[in-house]
Formats: sequence, C-alpha cells, structure tokens
Amino acid sequence: MIKVSVFYPSRPGAKFDMQYYCEKHIPMVQQRLGAACKQVAVEEGIAGAAPGTSAAFIAMGHLYCDSVEAFHSAFAPHAQAIMADIVNYTDIEPTIQISEVKV
Amino acid sequence: MIKVSVFYPSRPGAKFDMQYYCEKHIPMVQQRLGAACKQVAVEEGIAGAAPGTSAAFIAMGHLYCDSVEAFHSAFAPHAQAIMADIVNYTDIEPTIQISEVKV
Repeated sequence: MIKVSVFYPSRPGAKFDMQYYCEKHIPMVQQRLGAACKQVAVEEGIAGAAPGTSAAFIAMGHLYCDSVEAFHSAFAPHAQAIMADIVNYTDIEPTIQISEVKV
Repeated sequence: MIKVSVFYPSRPGAKFDMQYYCEKHIPMVQQRLGAACKQVAVEEGIAGAAPGTSAAFIAMGHLYCDSVEAFHSAFAPHAQAIMADIVNYTDIEPTIQISEVKV
C-alpha cells in the first residue's frame, strides 16, 4: 500500500479553509480517483512537540492506493480539475510525497 | 483523536534503519505509552509528486491518542528512554507535530 501525502506548511497570514477541504475537495478527489483510492485521511496541525510551539503543517491530506502506478493512472486524467480546485481553499503551495506504508 | 507525527527529513548521507525503527523503536514506544496509544503508523518516503523526484521525508512515524493531554501524560515518564533510542536508528533530527484527525 502506498500513501500520497499533501503537506500544507504553516505560514503567517496563510489561508486554509478546512471545512471546504474536508467537505468538498477531498470528497471530489476521492470520487475522481474512484476504486484506486482505498482510503483518505485529513489532519489539522495544532501544535509542535513541546507545549506552546506551533505545528510545521497547518493541514495534511493523505490518499491510500495499492501502488504508485495505480495512483498515477487514476490521478493523471483528473490532475487539472483537482489542481484547479486548490485555490478554493488555500493559497499555500503544498509539499507532496509518496510513501510506502510499512506499519 | 489526535495524531503525533514524527517527520525525518531526507538528507544526503543520512542514516535511517527502517527495520530497527519498525521492529524495535515503534514497538517500544507503543509498549511504553500503553493504552494511551490507540494506533501507530510508519511510512517510508519513496518519491515526490512528479515521477523522478525524491521524497521530502525519508520516514514518518505516527502515534494516535485520544487527546494532547493523554499523549503528554503517557509520554512524559518515558521521554528520556524513547529519545535515547533515536541514535540507534537515525542521525536525522526529526520535526514533530501534533494534529487533530479531521477525516
């Protein structure tokens, strides 16, 4: 299983509409990817490790697929529509990575 | 539910022993935190978003707890032992953040 993670770095004054992200963007991505998307997850950064410190990422979204190839095949036809929706909830440029689920 | 994420940034020449991390470190953390730790997850970074690019994080570990307070109470008595084990699998200084699970 692989996990595609989208990290939105915290930045003073940045916009991030968590409600839109959870209720519109993620369901749209899930619907577009269809059966290739096995699971989704969303988190909101609330703190750093030590009390009183802030989170490096204001938000993270994750998609689980069977393989990198399965993700790319399912994502490519919808990449433009999915990317075009980003401005509707944030002005942050995300960091994206693909990981292998080990545990 | 909250998620404590530990991100290990990729860096040329960095050491990260994924086998030790999955088979020794994470089980030890889980055992020390006891019932406060509801779930664990580990991922290994394999690529950036675009084919041919590399992952920002070589590894990520996640602990799920009911609340920030539950995590801190369970972690504090074992912090020293857990931190002391890090040199056994990596020389990377991790970024840690606490997030609220939204989806």
